[in-house]
Amino acid sequence: MSQNQKTAKKAAKPVKQDTDELLSLEAKYCSWGDTVHYAQKLNIFSRSEGIYLYDREGAEYLDLQMWYSAVNFGYKNKRLNDALKRQLDILPQLACQYLHEEKIRLAAKLAQRIERTFETKGRIHFNVGGAQAIEDSLKLVRSSTGRNLVFAFMGGYHGRTLGASAITSSYRYREKFGHFSDRAMFIPYPYCFRCPYDKKKEFCDFYCVKQFERLFETEYHSVVNKKTNKCELGAFYVESIQGTGGYVIPPYEYFVRLKEILDRYNILMVDDEIQMGFFRTGRFWGIEHFNVEPDIIVFGKALTNGLNPLSGIWAKERLISPEAFPPGSTHSTFSSNSLGTAIGLETMKLIEESDLTIEVPEKGEYFLSRLKALKRKYPEIGDVDGLGLALRMEMCHKDGFTPNKELTDCITDIGLSGKLTAGGKKRGLILDVGGYHKNVFTLAPSLFIQKKEIDLAVDLFEEALKEGIRLTA
Amino acid sequence: MSQNQKTAKKAAKPVKQDTDELLSLEAKYCSWGDTVHYAQKLNIFSRSEGIYLYDREGAEYLDLQMWYSAVNFGYKNKRLNDALKRQLDILPQLACQYLHEEKIRLAAKLAQRIERTFETKGRIHFNVGGAQAIEDSLKLVRSSTGRNLVFAFMGGYHGRTLGASAITSSYRYREKFGHFSDRAMFIPYPYCFRCPYDKKKEFCDFYCVKQFERLFETEYHSVVNKKTNKCELGAFYVESIQGTGGYVIPPYEYFVRLKEILDRYNILMVDDEIQMGFFRTGRFWGIEHFNVEPDIIVFGKALTNGLNPLSGIWAKERLISPEAFPPGSTHSTFSSNSLGTAIGLETMKLIEESDLTIEVPEKGEYFLSRLKALKRKYPEIGDVDGLGLALRMEMCHKDGFTPNKELTDCITDIGLSGKLTAGGKKRGLILDVGGYHKNVFTLAPSLFIQKKEIDLAVDLFEEALKEGIRLTA
Amino acid sequence: MSQNQKTAKKAAKPVKQDTDELLSLEAKYCSWGDTVHYAQKLNIFSRSEGIYLYDREGAEYLDLQMWYSAVNFGYKNKRLNDALKRQLDILPQLACQYLHEEKIRLAAKLAQRIERTFETKGRIHFNVGGAQAIEDSLKLVRSSTGRNLVFAFMGGYHGRTLGASAITSSYRYREKFGHFSDRAMFIPYPYCFRCPYDKKKEFCDFYCVKQFERLFETEYHSVVNKKTNKCELGAFYVESIQGTGGYVIPPYEYFVRLKEILDRYNILMVDDEIQMGFFRTGRFWGIEHFNVEPDIIVFGKALTNGLNPLSGIWAKERLISPEAFPPGSTHSTFSSNSLGTAIGLETMKLIEESDLTIEVPEKGEYFLSRLKALKRKYPEIGDVDGLGLALRMEMCHKDGFTPNKELTDCITDIGLSGKLTAGGKKRGLILDVGGYHKNVFTLAPSLFIQKKEIDLAVDLFEEALKEGIRLTA
Amino acid sequence: MSQNQKTAKKAAKPVKQDTDELLSLEAKYCSWGDTVHYAQKLNIFSRSEGIYLYDREGAEYLDLQMWYSAVNFGYKNKRLNDALKRQLDILPQLACQYLHEEKIRLAAKLAQRIERTFETKGRIHFNVGGAQAIEDSLKLVRSSTGRNLVFAFMGGYHGRTLGASAITSSYRYREKFGHFSDRAMFIPYPYCFRCPYDKKKEFCDFYCVKQFERLFETEYHSVVNKKTNKCELGAFYVESIQGTGGYVIPPYEYFVRLKEILDRYNILMVDDEIQMGFFRTGRFWGIEHFNVEPDIIVFGKALTNGLNPLSGIWAKERLISPEAFPPGSTHSTFSSNSLGTAIGLETMKLIEESDLTIEVPEKGEYFLSRLKALKRKYPEIGDVDGLGLALRMEMCHKDGFTPNKELTDCITDIGLSGKLTAGGKKRGLILDVGGYHKNVFTLAPSLFIQKKEIDLAVDLFEEALKEGIRLTA
Repeated sequence: MSQNQKTAKKAAKPVKQDTDELLSLEAKYCSWGDTVHYAQKLNIFSRSEGIYLYDREGAEYLDLQMWYSAVNFGYKNKRLNDALKRQLDILPQLACQYLHEEKIRLAAKLAQRIERTFETKGRIHFNVGGAQAIEDSLKLVRSSTGRNLVFAFMGGYHGRTLGASAITSSYRYREKFGHFSDRAMFIPYPYCFRCPYDKKKEFCDFYCVKQFERLFETEYHSVVNKKTNKCELGAFYVESIQGTGGYVIPPYEYFVRLKEILDRYNILMVDDEIQMGFFRTGRFWGIEHFNVEPDIIVFGKALTNGLNPLSGIWAKERLISPEAFPPGSTHSTFSSNSLGTAIGLETMKLIEESDLTIEVPEKGEYFLSRLKALKRKYPEIGDVDGLGLALRMEMCHKDGFTPNKELTDCITDIGLSGKLTAGGKKRGLILDVGGYHKNVFTLAPSLFIQKKEIDLAVDLFEEALKEGIRLTA
Repeated sequence: MSQNQKTAKKAAKPVKQDTDELLSLEAKYCSWGDTVHYAQKLNIFSRSEGIYLYDREGAEYLDLQMWYSAVNFGYKNKRLNDALKRQLDILPQLACQYLHEEKIRLAAKLAQRIERTFETKGRIHFNVGGAQAIEDSLKLVRSSTGRNLVFAFMGGYHGRTLGASAITSSYRYREKFGHFSDRAMFIPYPYCFRCPYDKKKEFCDFYCVKQFERLFETEYHSVVNKKTNKCELGAFYVESIQGTGGYVIPPYEYFVRLKEILDRYNILMVDDEIQMGFFRTGRFWGIEHFNVEPDIIVFGKALTNGLNPLSGIWAKERLISPEAFPPGSTHSTFSSNSLGTAIGLETMKLIEESDLTIEVPEKGEYFLSRLKALKRKYPEIGDVDGLGLALRMEMCHKDGFTPNKELTDCITDIGLSGKLTAGGKKRGLILDVGGYHKNVFTLAPSLFIQKKEIDLAVDLFEEALKEGIRLTA
Repeated sequence: MSQNQKTAKKAAKPVKQDTDELLSLEAKYCSWGDTVHYAQKLNIFSRSEGIYLYDREGAEYLDLQMWYSAVNFGYKNKRLNDALKRQLDILPQLACQYLHEEKIRLAAKLAQRIERTFETKGRIHFNVGGAQAIEDSLKLVRSSTGRNLVFAFMGGYHGRTLGASAITSSYRYREKFGHFSDRAMFIPYPYCFRCPYDKKKEFCDFYCVKQFERLFETEYHSVVNKKTNKCELGAFYVESIQGTGGYVIPPYEYFVRLKEILDRYNILMVDDEIQMGFFRTGRFWGIEHFNVEPDIIVFGKALTNGLNPLSGIWAKERLISPEAFPPGSTHSTFSSNSLGTAIGLETMKLIEESDLTIEVPEKGEYFLSRLKALKRKYPEIGDVDGLGLALRMEMCHKDGFTPNKELTDCITDIGLSGKLTAGGKKRGLILDVGGYHKNVFTLAPSLFIQKKEIDLAVDLFEEALKEGIRLTA
Repeated sequence: MSQNQKTAKKAAKPVKQDTDELLSLEAKYCSWGDTVHYAQKLNIFSRSEGIYLYDREGAEYLDLQMWYSAVNFGYKNKRLNDALKRQLDILPQLACQYLHEEKIRLAAKLAQRIERTFETKGRIHFNVGGAQAIEDSLKLVRSSTGRNLVFAFMGGYHGRTLGASAITSSYRYREKFGHFSDRAMFIPYPYCFRCPYDKKKEFCDFYCVKQFERLFETEYHSVVNKKTNKCELGAFYVESIQGTGGYVIPPYEYFVRLKEILDRYNILMVDDEIQMGFFRTGRFWGIEHFNVEPDIIVFGKALTNGLNPLSGIWAKERLISPEAFPPGSTHSTFSSNSLGTAIGLETMKLIEESDLTIEVPEKGEYFLSRLKALKRKYPEIGDVDGLGLALRMEMCHKDGFTPNKELTDCITDIGLSGKLTAGGKKRGLILDVGGYHKNVFTLAPSLFIQKKEIDLAVDLFEEALKEGIRLTA
């Protein structure tokens, strides 16, 4: 194809010189306020396909984070790319105050699926960017409960608008930006490997839930008026599995027990599935593993496989009916844009026609078994865990517990250097680091990754790990 | 092409029945909380091209709002669509923590252009959706001034996140959502046709600016401590031309005088160009008409011609340097997504290679002259005005002043009914209504609209106007 | 009496040396954060009686501010002092959760008087300190309107708790204390001598009221949703006559017109009578001059003639009934302390048995006439005005308009120096300075001041004025 | 004296009829929003002396709460009453912008005493009412740390202004009053009898402190940015012994350990001594027992023995120096009123000349030993504890643990009925109830209570207790 030829030609140019120019422009004209400059050495990528990224020199990087689960269905997924192209040729643009078919069908498919799963009627409201969907959910919470304040988890992440930053635990995200009047009340998350209460999972009997429940014992515990039984906070924001927090999987019964308390005080459960939705965990929503029915679900990322920032919320009918959330309650120019909804609709069809319910858990188990084997071999791997293809490896010192950020960073850099050889040729490995101590590899490979690619990934990782241990020894 | 054939085939189905099913799904599964249900009768569109939208029955609608200026370069603009397809084939997805060429080049082009225009160095920070760019600008304001509070204009619109709603004048957008701790201090806008101070433009001598200046006279006027000369508010958010407020064009000298006061108290001027940027007014930024240099510019919409929600801010170096706005200050999954930046980069090239600086003002003047002719004919048109191809017609009662929302709505509905015949065949007319009294047609045609299409638009409008006057008489 | 002998003996000690020691202790152990150190030279007073203060050397100062109207009934008023002593001997202390007779009788007397005046039933809630009563009124506003935000006047003063500072116009009072989430929306006050809109009182036709009314025209003016007719702000805080703002008296009809607008949108009028209540203006409440009935009245200061910080609010029954404001809604240890209520009750009896309704206006007119005569003589007196014994003199440059803070301060210092001779012996003159430009003498003499004492006061003032003009020439 | 004769005469009137009239006036004209109507049956008291209150029928009530420690030195303490009368005869009133001797000497005495105790220089700032002093402390915290947010304890109580309510744990105090933008982050208090973490004091090794310390481990725990080491919260508000929370005494080392953490992050410790100051616990400040030096001390109540609401704060020089807290930072009409400061000064002298340091602990131990004996006898007494004359008895069900509010209320009512006979004549007993579960008698007798009066008090209590157990059986 001519386009590929052009690309090829371009690649023939003195790439290094061009890259230097780019980096010089970047240094001068790009804000460094995003996350690019977390890294010391900047990588420029120019191509992505399947489970691989390619840099300007053509080097191949096996990607185990897939844009933090935005690209669950693989880079350059033909079916989804084609859906975008198709819509581009027909209805590439339309003001969102008018309707188009794909918006309706996508909303219907999502709401119907949730209705089947949770046996609850509800509606979909679209927006763009996960944080804006979070903002819409906050609007729903405020209008239906009359409360500005919410609970959220320590270790939770919900985005970076001012409203989302107020309910995202990390203070670093707020420090420079003045007073946050709606700062959430943050509750310890059931991070059992590092239990916030120093309990052992086997014997704790959900001590953390009981600690939460204790808040409602008397008015003096600051959140409830026992005379009216009303709570000062309107909702509890949860991630089924904490994403940025390090893919921490809560005990199976945790959410059931939590929800029971919330229901007693009419506190809504808002389930942020932006990272874990769309089969990352082997089910459509991560929360489906936990036998609990949220009041509001927030989604984004993988809905369009990363081709469009389309996001949205689902809420129970009583919260989002036309009476409860009437016309004009919220709005955004691109909220239900025709390109995004067309891709999203195709994603839904792809899901319906796939065996993700079976395949993802299978692949996940295989991947996890390989990681567990590594753990047995390397004491520096303190913990591995996974649900579907959301997997975690916690890097520690030799004691298998003390967080080892230095080693984690070193392995990441080795991966990014593109010089691993495990698969028989030079390759890089793209790893994402999360966790409270920034020592957790949060692995989110393509849901279409093959078994031998998993093998390759683990081999590459082991190579980087060995080298990392050596360098940081 | 096979795709068109499919579409054709689809169109052969009993459209009406299918439409009914869609509307029924919409009623059940879509949130009504966006702006779709402002309308009584819902329109579903299925195709867009050039200056036209097409509904499911194939009826053609001449569009004079172009997705509120998101599609300045015409629906299905081949060059821009191709840019998207090209990127789809190469680098459709990439996590924003890594770099890609188009992001850098687009940032450089934008910053360099602003540097040439205002002789000021600065940087670009991308995000998705205008409101998220507004949120980023609020972060900059807060971190650089240490203040949460800002001035904004009555009639101003900056988006619908909680943070953006706090600085958007309309209380309707806040009413259901609890307390807004950072509610802006709203200042009357120089809306001379309906002067907030009942002055005549010819004699007022910028009374409105003086009223603003008076706030700084003593500490008792609530905003300044004369002993420290510090102001309680960190910035003033402006739109060069109020968008949703009804395309109100301020007097030429207004912003210069305003900025002079702001500079005295180190109050930043944030210029929201989300609607007016990218040549809507005949210059790259609307503010360029007013001889004033903003400290922060916020942009979105037309940057990608509506193909991607890419948005962003430009800020002066001292505000956004790596020291002032360090890595991790803000973030969004899709912030500098490869598809959006590739389209944006092509938009910049298209602009550079076009004669928009000449053509847009010419077309605008022609369009305005035709509207002025209409005004002379119909007393119900209280005011027409325009800058470039941002044009306004204020619909009134026969006195030419009392706002006539009923007539405005009636004309809009006539346009949407698709039964106008002015051009020799049945057509619809897409009009956007704005203004403090919801009686202003805010016209934003494609920048590539042709003279004869302008003629057609005006003819269609006149036909609708006549009918509207008749029906509401 | 032995006590006086002791005092006499004490005075026989080397006073100067003792004073130096006191000032040295003050410099070291007293916070300077109150208003003492506004003055360059510190005055220590040791005795007060009638209309006079006496310093440690025994010098006499005629007081024209009477503790900003806290001592309306004269220093060391025997009747009120005796009431305090009496209660001291019987029930000096009692926890406010139990009742005592004086609390009940005082509440009844106040509420019954207001009922007679305004023909409205209501109740009294006591507290200590004006600001705490303001806080209680804010609680009433919030609980009955569901709104945190209120209107208040530029130039208004309601106290210095964080809540009161948020509705007090001067930014200087907030600057050091972070973000104020409930900052009032401040509205220009009808300060006709320096009209905020540069109008002339004779021709303005209440332009300022119309400007306020305009805020309610459309939702775009930021405060009202026209679809629900609800306002974002729950109350308007007014002082019948601005105290700290410079004893500015609004036009007679002003409040009637304002209230009419407020009633349309269910906005409460809260009338802060802390300075102007208890006959300062010749009527029980200052607002009684203006033919308007407030929803809440806040009072303090003169209720106990300055012998106890007792303060309180009166509110209409629907706002403060046991259902609306149930037990435990607010509380303060000293809220209805037995000493304060006993004095307050005696104050009410004193008022009932006095001819203040006649005497205060008479004395006020006489005082005002003498000030007007001064104004005719000295162009530096830009404005004099008065209502009852709340009188203002605005000091200006020779143009009679430009504020002259320097002259004002100079006259104040001359008064405090205690070396005026007008009355035939060395005396001082205690003047209070207020006003937006700190150039207004706000005169609040004892309500029991005699005509010849007024003459003396004016003579002393004229002497200081002449000297001040000379020194600042 | 004639006054006593009048009183005698008054008492001769048909008291019952007069009381009914009073109660009827109260029902009509008094706000019920304070704490009077917590009680079903209202008591009117007319006389107080020593440790006794007397009702209108002359019945005597032994008081074990002394206006929640406002009257530490006994009702109608002659020395302090005389000090008030003396000042009344000399300088009863003086605007606080001028100085008077007693203010200075009182400030000096307080600051010097604190300087001796903690070896730290500081200053005093007066105000009226504990809550206003708390507001002043919040101003200091905000201005010196730049932070609005603070930590406070669950079970803590700091007053009822909006600002104080935001840092007082009980949500009931906030529920009706909208959004509190500065709501504290509430931390579990070391209430060992009902350990918030279900630990045993003997083995816990300060688990609660470690839980607090854990908040600072990573930025994900919501309060600290580890990169800057800055905390989102500026101060920690503590009561040395929780007052309203039920006179809960923390373990001896608790505050030392807490302060160590606070110091690491520059978090101020604000010590609210409003209830526990002035020897209630056997030392001048309650905190003196705990080997820790607070940054700010807030005091009130007993400073004037309840004769005047004078309150105040002491702060370290660096926080409150004239540079840090300059003139005009805060203000209140009655802030350093001459009557209050004169009494306060006499209180300080009385303290200096007394043996409170020895006597209060002695009496406290004796009282406590008697209570412990009761506890051994009655299983319904779950816990007794005390520090000086701040004593607690926690009423439970027969298990000695389950809170028994019904019994507590019943005993309180029996005490108030005035029909106990333990001392050989009919008497009442005034008890105050506190505690998270409203089941704790918080005993605060006069510091001058005699041993035999303690015996009488315990006998009366036991009588009421028996009867209460019988009635609620």
